[in-house]
Amino acid sequence: MAASLFAEKGYNGVGVAEIGAASGFGRGTLYHHIESKEDLLHEIASTYISDLVHSGHNIVKEYPDPIQRLKALSRHLMTVISSSLAEIVVCFREVQSLTGSRHDDVMCMHAEYQKIWSKTIDEGVKQNVFRAVDKIAVKGLLGMYFYSCLWLKPDGLQSPADISDVFSDLVIRSLSKRPND
Amino acid sequence: MAASLFAEKGYNGVGVAEIGAASGFGRGTLYHHIESKEDLLHEIASTYISDLVHSGHNIVKEYPDPIQRLKALSRHLMTVISSSLAEIVVCFREVQSLTGSRHDDVMCMHAEYQKIWSKTIDEGVKQNVFRAVDKIAVKGLLGMYFYSCLWLKPDGLQSPADISDVFSDLVIRSLSKRPND
Repeated sequence: MAASLFAEKGYNGVGVAEIGAASGFGRGTLYHHIESKEDLLHEIASTYISDLVHSGHNIVKEYPDPIQRLKALSRHLMTVISSSLAEIVVCFREVQSLTGSRHDDVMCMHAEYQKIWSKTIDEGVKQNVFRAVDKIAVKGLLGMYFYSCLWLKPDGLQSPADISDVFSDLVIRSLSKRPND
Repeated sequence: MAASLFAEKGYNGVGVAEIGAASGFGRGTLYHHIESKEDLLHEIASTYISDLVHSGHNIVKEYPDPIQRLKALSRHLMTVISSSLAEIVVCFREVQSLTGSRHDDVMCMHAEYQKIWSKTIDEGVKQNVFRAVDKIAVKGLLGMYFYSCLWLKPDGLQSPADISDVFSDLVIRSLSKRPND
């Protein structure tokens, strides 16, 4: 709810009183629940990425095969993006409004999530199913997913699973080793 | 300069007086030059995308081969992203602050740029070098590039050309037709 307000009006354009009114709490009660507006922004920006990291580690355990694991990571990522559109848009737009440890915390979780994908690609390289790629490739491939928060329509014709199938197919083909590699 | 201010403080967090002071004009002179702050935002959001569209059409004429054309489009796109980081960040964050024809104009140019890539892929499919992909694939592939505005460092170790080489390699492999397709 606060995420939708921030997404619509910008973090600087929304006051705690407005968030309180929209949530049904008064400003005083809201301040009691959250120490500051920045805490609220931190909560918005950290919930979906901590879910991605936590579930990502579980997917690593569940899928030893790098290709199957990328498909599972892809499916889960598109599902989270689709169900957390406002939160992700706010995080992209406003992450620089977070300061100190709140900012570091969010950036560290994004780096940890990226490592889950990098490690999967590295395992595929060791197993000779993927070719070795520059480490910037994983940033590009994840960007393909995260950028979708700007065009994805939750009620669109294609489900997150459909989109994930198209994207994971592109990702796996872009990495797959070929006879001449 | 206004783009950097908007990128740093958010569109709603910057007044025309501040832009005037930073640019060396007074507020009055600045209002004389630009009708409103929204015109300034429109100018920021439309300059790089109109360059991409214009140069994109030239690249289409210059490179009839779909693979060579994708490489040229990729190289040009990463160069523009790298040289227009503040403008692109502002466009992503604040495009919803544009209203009416200003908003439509920017969105139409983005759609036109996407068509240049789609058309190139379609030509590759006709020439049997690319496989047919769902039309959402081009959104994903372009997202790979545009999302880089969030992590790209203009003074980073890898040049825009280096990054483009990694990305266009991923793109072309993800689309290339294989014996079993």
